Amino acid sequence: MYHLRIENIKNHLTANENEVSKVIGIDKINIKDLKELIDSPEAQVYKDECRKFLQKEPSFTTNFYNLDPINYKELVLKQISSIAKNGIVRFTDVRDNVYRLTSAFEIFSMYNNNITTKMGVQYTLFGGTITLLGTQRHEKYIAPADVLQIAGCFAMTEIGHGSNVRGIETTATYKKSTQEFIINSPTPTSQKFWIGGAGLHAHYATVFAKLIIDSKDYGVHAFVVPIRDTNSNQILPGITIKDCGQKLGLNGIDNGQIKFDQVHIPRENLLNKFSDVAADGTYKSAFTSPIKNFAATMAPFVVGRLGISKVNSGASKSALAIAIRFSHVRKQFGPTENNELPIITLSSQRQRLIVPLSKTIVLDLFQQKLAKDFTLEKVPSTIHAQCSGVKALYSWECIKTLQVCREACGGQGYRASNRISEFKSDVDITATYEGDNTVLMQQVAKFLLAQKPQTNLPLVRLVKPADLFNLPKILDLFRYRTELKVDQLRGLLKSSSEKNAYLAYNQLIPWGQSAANAYMETIILENTMQFIKKKLVQPLPHFCYIDTLSKIQDDLAWFISNQFISVELANSIPFILMDLCNQLTPHLLDIVEAFDIPKKALPVEDLISDLF
Amino acid sequence: MYHLRIENIKNHLTANENEVSKVIGIDKINIKDLKELIDSPEAQVYKDECRKFLQKEPSFTTNFYNLDPINYKELVLKQISSIAKNGIVRFTDVRDNVYRLTSAFEIFSMYNNNITTKMGVQYTLFGGTITLLGTQRHEKYIAPADVLQIAGCFAMTEIGHGSNVRGIETTATYKKSTQEFIINSPTPTSQKFWIGGAGLHAHYATVFAKLIIDSKDYGVHAFVVPIRDTNSNQILPGITIKDCGQKLGLNGIDNGQIKFDQVHIPRENLLNKFSDVAADGTYKSAFTSPIKNFAATMAPFVVGRLGISKVNSGASKSALAIAIRFSHVRKQFGPTENNELPIITLSSQRQRLIVPLSKTIVLDLFQQKLAKDFTLEKVPSTIHAQCSGVKALYSWECIKTLQVCREACGGQGYRASNRISEFKSDVDITATYEGDNTVLMQQVAKFLLAQKPQTNLPLVRLVKPADLFNLPKILDLFRYRTELKVDQLRGLLKSSSEKNAYLAYNQLIPWGQSAANAYMETIILENTMQFIKKKLVQPLPHFCYIDTLSKIQDDLAWFISNQFISVELANSIPFILMDLCNQLTPHLLDIVEAFDIPKKALPVEDLISDLF
Ligand SMILES: Cc1cc2nc3c(=O)[nH]c(=O)nc-3n(C[C@H](O)[C@H](O)[C@H](O)COP(=O)(O)OP(=O)(O)OC[C@H]3O[C@@H](n4cnc5c(N)ncnc54)[C@H](O)[C@@H]3O)c2cc1C
Ligand SMILES: Cc1cc2nc3c(=O)[nH]c(=O)nc-3n(C[C@H](O)[C@H](O)[C@H](O)COP(=O)(O)OP(=O)(O)OC[C@H]3O[C@@H](n4cnc5c(N)ncnc54)[C@H](O)[C@@H]3O)c2cc1C
Repeated sequence: MYHLRIENIKNHLTANENEVSKVIGIDKINIKDLKELIDSPEAQVYKDECRKFLQKEPSFTTNFYNLDPINYKELVLKQISSIAKNGIVRFTDVRDNVYRLTSAFEIFSMYNNNITTKMGVQYTLFGGTITLLGTQRHEKYIAPADVLQIAGCFAMTEIGHGSNVRGIETTATYKKSTQEFIINSPTPTSQKFWIGGAGLHAHYATVFAKLIIDSKDYGVHAFVVPIRDTNSNQILPGITIKDCGQKLGLNGIDNGQIKFDQVHIPRENLLNKFSDVAADGTYKSAFTSPIKNFAATMAPFVVGRLGISKVNSGASKSALAIAIRFSHVRKQFGPTENNELPIITLSSQRQRLIVPLSKTIVLDLFQQKLAKDFTLEKVPSTIHAQCSGVKALYSWECIKTLQVCREACGGQGYRASNRISEFKSDVDITATYEGDNTVLMQQVAKFLLAQKPQTNLPLVRLVKPADLFNLPKILDLFRYRTELKVDQLRGLLKSSSEKNAYLAYNQLIPWGQSAANAYMETIILENTMQFIKKKLVQPLPHFCYIDTLSKIQDDLAWFISNQFISVELANSIPFILMDLCNQLTPHLLDIVEAFDIPKKALPVEDLISDLF
Repeated sequence: MYHLRIENIKNHLTANENEVSKVIGIDKINIKDLKELIDSPEAQVYKDECRKFLQKEPSFTTNFYNLDPINYKELVLKQISSIAKNGIVRFTDVRDNVYRLTSAFEIFSMYNNNITTKMGVQYTLFGGTITLLGTQRHEKYIAPADVLQIAGCFAMTEIGHGSNVRGIETTATYKKSTQEFIINSPTPTSQKFWIGGAGLHAHYATVFAKLIIDSKDYGVHAFVVPIRDTNSNQILPGITIKDCGQKLGLNGIDNGQIKFDQVHIPRENLLNKFSDVAADGTYKSAFTSPIKNFAATMAPFVVGRLGISKVNSGASKSALAIAIRFSHVRKQFGPTENNELPIITLSSQRQRLIVPLSKTIVLDLFQQKLAKDFTLEKVPSTIHAQCSGVKALYSWECIKTLQVCREACGGQGYRASNRISEFKSDVDITATYEGDNTVLMQQVAKFLLAQKPQTNLPLVRLVKPADLFNLPKILDLFRYRTELKVDQLRGLLKSSSEKNAYLAYNQLIPWGQSAANAYMETIILENTMQFIKKKLVQPLPHFCYIDTLSKIQDDLAWFISNQFISVELANSIPFILMDLCNQLTPHLLDIVEAFDIPKKALPVEDLISDLF
């Protein structure tokens, strides 16, 4: 049983299975085609523009990693100014051109994640609230924000409340006599915290606060609040700002703590796309309940989460490129003392780099689908759950990928000038900000619980070797798995002794997470298959098989115990995975080439020749 | 099948299984007993001394995290000086008192890992080479090194060679006429790199170089080379030193790059415990082959690896304490809007903290066994493989634990003053230095391949619920698994088409790693069981069950597909694990208390009250 070798499997495969023959051997990789696949036809022009800009723009220096926090923040400000002034992205892109905006996130994240975090604040968070929650009366901010004459920030999180936004304490009390809102931080924990841009550079904040009219609480709404004078940069009266201090990473971002002491703003500063307060204090809302209004108010986050996952895409690709190129030139050990071999010849090194590489590409293609969803006449109702899910999955995957790449480069991965370490420290927080991953996966689970159970799904089993390469069959199986896991969760919730739905669910979060994961894996596979069908670009099938088989392996006990896969087949997976990795190995440098990472974003290939 | 609930399982269990009844419910935790268990009777006095010292010694400041690299290095020097001057550890401890030395690693690592890295360099690496590879003629270094009048470093790694130490290029050529060795860096890649202490503070280096006598290469030997004047601190002639630059972490350590330009040292500076060169150039060795001499030369690493895993122990415990305490005071969400609950009430939060907590304790107990091994009359021959294995496992586990703890604290985990982030950046390299983990796991695999196959092991199956709590049975199963995995590896190696053993093995590294892992998990379980037997300190059985069941879960597909566990039982594991976590939850703060972490090492409990 243990000796089932890949050779045997291959013999089975090549005989008469169509699907499979694609897998065996890759002739040559067409770098241009692969680049187009990864870039996407819709976004390639924007990405190429960003690449060119990044490479030539002097503010994108290459020795940022040892700047002190003050100079780092100045540098990042310079960089975002040059992006704005050159019109690389526009303030309205979050609403009008998701392709351009997310392309910039991806490419600039290949270089550094401070700049893309600052972009996220200005363009998706501040920009998103102004353009998606505001109305005509807020258009006056667009032109100056577009050229960074005004910088904005997004003040939602408070010291006391992060994930539970509905629990925030900041108040916006309507004062009829002057037609103003009074923004106030009533308690120490109500102080806004972590607000990117607030520390030094932002002139305006979109502040999330509880709307109070005549002592009645209407729930969380967003308001535009000037916090610094646009000319002098002086902090305005009634506002106290402190720096959030040294962080694990992102020390080029000026995160700030804001305290509002009865700050008056005009009535028009309420972002009133969905709800408004008339001069006389009458409240009008497009929604029947505060919770629906609240949900609509969170809309900018949907694009934002895609944006974060683009940060993960850029950082993962650079780290993989660094580790893969290094592994081709770094020699260590060999069959004889005088014949050391490149470490890419080691099976462990191949596997640990190729599995995350495959996952990265497959996730990238899923992002392309989501970006397209935003351009559709009717944005699909799945978009919120899927953007949340991909943000959580990609950020966790990216954190793991960066760790593997760091270790794969040995000690040299630890040297700041070799870049991976900076990515690691910066990217770490993508698991938390714009929605904590554990919380987001529950949003996916809750979306699934709200769906009608599907009862007519085909029931398949993987039994013969070719089944492991039969993607439609695996997709059916993944669908079935999702359904079973959601069904199990429903059953567990029902049999819970807790009357309160919140408490019942809280005992079962890991089960919700498992169902959410199964769902995400299903739609990701579905999407990759559609790409393969549209145009077979090599080595996309390899990426898809490696990604999918490694997912099956991660949940293998479940598949075996439910008899969805035969034991013999299950035992062959490690061999097949290794064989696929071996087949991909000769093409790794071409694949990395197809990422088309601007030269400036990468350290010297061998990670050591700068030392001589 | 999915609805098998823990309640049912409990009913099964309590009936008549002795082993199991221990598990259900924990009355109360005796903090003193638990502290003694974790500290170990042999080491407690040393650990308590370190705790007291750390808490009162002013150089152990609490705001090191935002120091610039220069001041950080000065601070760490001050700290190690105070340790030396107060006799907290002794230069000879690596040889004479492993308990004291490793206790210091553990406790000071609860505070910061720069200081313990610097200690590692001075005491285990420099100290280890002098005391374990030197002879009487090198005792002159001991007294001044003991009070840090001389600081040392350990110069093994070169730019071109890290893991493959036998490939280093530095030469030590014997010059008969003057009875000297000439230490030289013949190529750019032969420059020593990463040498901790070399950057600023070290006066002496133990340099690993190829011994050349009359043009004949005798392989790698270790030499004491003065590199700085002990009075003036000036770098000595022929030696060029550069700083290794900014790193992901450990920026309080002065890692340096050293180039030797024909540096003459007296013949006596060869560390000649195993091999020597007589005045006339005659080479004498206790070993018949250079490879055996080389293996003996690596001896200091054995203690060193235990030391590194103590760093992991200290850092993991502090991070867990921070995240667990935070989870008890941080409230977010709740059954109603005005009734927010502490996040420890969330099943996901419990599980993600309690599983690594259990692993940490169980690994700590295994370290105690290894420390004791060093004190035995005849140090067991397993010590090398087991120290290598535990270094790899604990460092990987610690990296995961720190990641989980960071995320579990949400955004506050990212703030440097809340400490976890500093641990993360520093500890990251424990996967690489003093032996890259992937390489170390292969040393374990090779040790296993060299053992005689065991053919008479009992074959057991887990079929009834109580079996999951039957530790002797699980231990038998773990033993069997190790044997099967080693056997599979042997079979694969035999059937490999590669003639060259190196190349054959390199295709199978992941299989070697899996066997090594199975072995380590076996001996760790065996060890924990011995502790439980000796004295039942609560909640050690819980830690053991949670650790063991989560290990079974990690390899569950293997257990199921080989029919070592019934499907029904396999499906119950997630429920049982959650139940065990729920049972431990009320005791978490007591458990953390038993770590007895010096107050100075921990941030404010809620991670926010320093902001007001
Ligand atoms: C560098 C940085 C930049 C940021 N920038 C901004 C910004 O510009 N503007 C802004 O408004 N905010 C910003 N944030 C805040 C960020 O969005 C929050 O940190 C995030 O929403 C999480 O909230 P929290 O930190 O309060 O964690 P908490 O919500 O307190 O969560 C703590 C822990 O509890 C767990 N948890 C909480 N609720 C649940 C649940 N229901 N189920 C399971 N687990 C749960 C979480 O998984 C987490 O591990 C930033 C944060 C950082 C660190
Ligand atoms: C902060 C820091 C402090 C240090 N302090 C010291 C010190 O004081 N003195 C000293 O001498 N050294 C020191 N080192 C060096 C350290 O010991 C080396 O980094 C380590 O031995 C790994 O060597 P390398 O970096 O050359 O990686 P390489 O050996 O080049 O390894 C690169 C990659 O290849 C993989 N690899 C290599 N060989 C194999 C194999 N056979 N099988 C599978 N995978 C393989 C590894 O897993 C790794 O991922 C330090 C390093 C750092 C980063």
